[in-house]
Amino acid sequence: MEIVREVDALKARRATWPGPVGLVPTMGYLHEGHVELVRRARAENATVVVSIFVNPTQFGPSEDYGRYPRAFERDCAMLEAAGTDAVFSPAPAAMYPETFSSWVVVEGVTSRLEGASRPGHFRGVATVCNKLFNIVNPTRAYFGQKDAQQVAVIQRMVRDLNMNLDIVVVPTVREADGLAMSSRNSYLSAEHRAAAPVLYRALTVARAMRREGRDANAIRLKMAEVVRAEPLAVLDYVSIVNPSTFEETESLNGPSLAVLAVRFGATRLIDNMRLDE
Amino acid sequence: MEIVREVDALKARRATWPGPVGLVPTMGYLHEGHVELVRRARAENATVVVSIFVNPTQFGPSEDYGRYPRAFERDCAMLEAAGTDAVFSPAPAAMYPETFSSWVVVEGVTSRLEGASRPGHFRGVATVCNKLFNIVNPTRAYFGQKDAQQVAVIQRMVRDLNMNLDIVVVPTVREADGLAMSSRNSYLSAEHRAAAPVLYRALTVARAMRREGRDANAIRLKMAEVVRAEPLAVLDYVSIVNPSTFEETESLNGPSLAVLAVRFGATRLIDNMRLDE
Repeated sequence: MEIVREVDALKARRATWPGPVGLVPTMGYLHEGHVELVRRARAENATVVVSIFVNPTQFGPSEDYGRYPRAFERDCAMLEAAGTDAVFSPAPAAMYPETFSSWVVVEGVTSRLEGASRPGHFRGVATVCNKLFNIVNPTRAYFGQKDAQQVAVIQRMVRDLNMNLDIVVVPTVREADGLAMSSRNSYLSAEHRAAAPVLYRALTVARAMRREGRDANAIRLKMAEVVRAEPLAVLDYVSIVNPSTFEETESLNGPSLAVLAVRFGATRLIDNMRLDE
Repeated sequence: MEIVREVDALKARRATWPGPVGLVPTMGYLHEGHVELVRRARAENATVVVSIFVNPTQFGPSEDYGRYPRAFERDCAMLEAAGTDAVFSPAPAAMYPETFSSWVVVEGVTSRLEGASRPGHFRGVATVCNKLFNIVNPTRAYFGQKDAQQVAVIQRMVRDLNMNLDIVVVPTVREADGLAMSSRNSYLSAEHRAAAPVLYRALTVARAMRREGRDANAIRLKMAEVVRAEPLAVLDYVSIVNPSTFEETESLNGPSLAVLAVRFGATRLIDNMRLDE
């Protein structure tokens, strides 16, 4: 497994790799969810590239960029074991030199929920993914369903800007108690960790209600009730959306996705589940 | 010469063309300036693609999108004579379907002059060029020096987003009296056409003053004086800028570009000249 630090070096190496090429973009501090993305990429491509880059432009000024967990050596060992061919891990100044001033802005799908809670977040996500796609030129890029709104933003960008790759969405990997894998789970105290499966419980209740034919409003109210019954949880939002547009949906006949964000102390977790599957 | 209307068809054809591929993006109603771009592309590439697309997103609501001149048959005849291999001319709805909501925004270099006079203009230019670069995947794209700020915006975007092509800038082609070739020259009345070379006169005076060692402020004042001496001309702006950043420059020791915009009735013309060459 080779480790590449410079943009030009990655482009030069790319020209020598057999295709198709699968890219797994990550911010490092990898867990089983990331490994699942790599496994899927490994099964579908001749070359697998994983990027490890804690992207400063997707963190708000009051967010956790500085303290975002990092474990590069451990990450590389996990990636090598999972069959990764190359790790691209540039320095922030290589991705954002001082003169940097171009942004990819996706409107509409970014206006609510994570976009509203985290101003500028999706501008940073879209911009860094656009750059990574141009640098690596992958046949496919792999994203986890856990960050469902991010997936919708990236798919919108790729379609709108006619980018030449396929976006592959991989199901969320969960702990035994249902908690979705996330690098931010490492922030949780033991008490908060024990309370955190409330997100999954609220989602499974939502799906059961959908199957019983209950309407969107009843489901939203019940999800909020489930979260509020957990004393350590503070509900940020609960919503049932069209998974492509992230507009609130009242009809449950078409594609519908239940999403929620919950705080445990300073740690904010998100999760989602399709209701129509 | 083949004519391609659909995005997917262009991508499919692209896969069959020998490289390197040169792209000349245009809005049609071609003149000798465009033909010069095609000649340069022809000399440097195995395949030459010209796009003809009057891009609605770079026109302001009060601008001339609807009445922008169009002459597709004549354009194709000129392009075939100049050795073009393929023309890409998509419908507006093919480039901007109803769900379209992603934009490339270049800050800094767009804040003054054309960017200030035409809000949203460079967002539209950057976005459509980003799309065309992804669709055509050219080795090189050719732009005229006449639209100097546009060139700076595109170069900034390509660098910031790590796009995989070279931007080639081709010197401005002028009429015998110095007027820079522009599709908008066709709007000029006979009287305005006779007055229009005042832009070139102001620029040549600026260059002569630079060679005499005069300072930037004296040159700006003199350029404005030259334009105001023409009764049919209304000065929009005159500026001496760093050609990469488009910030006003006081020092004439480094790269410097004199730029101006002048109105003749409803028609607005721009031109520029390097002072340090």
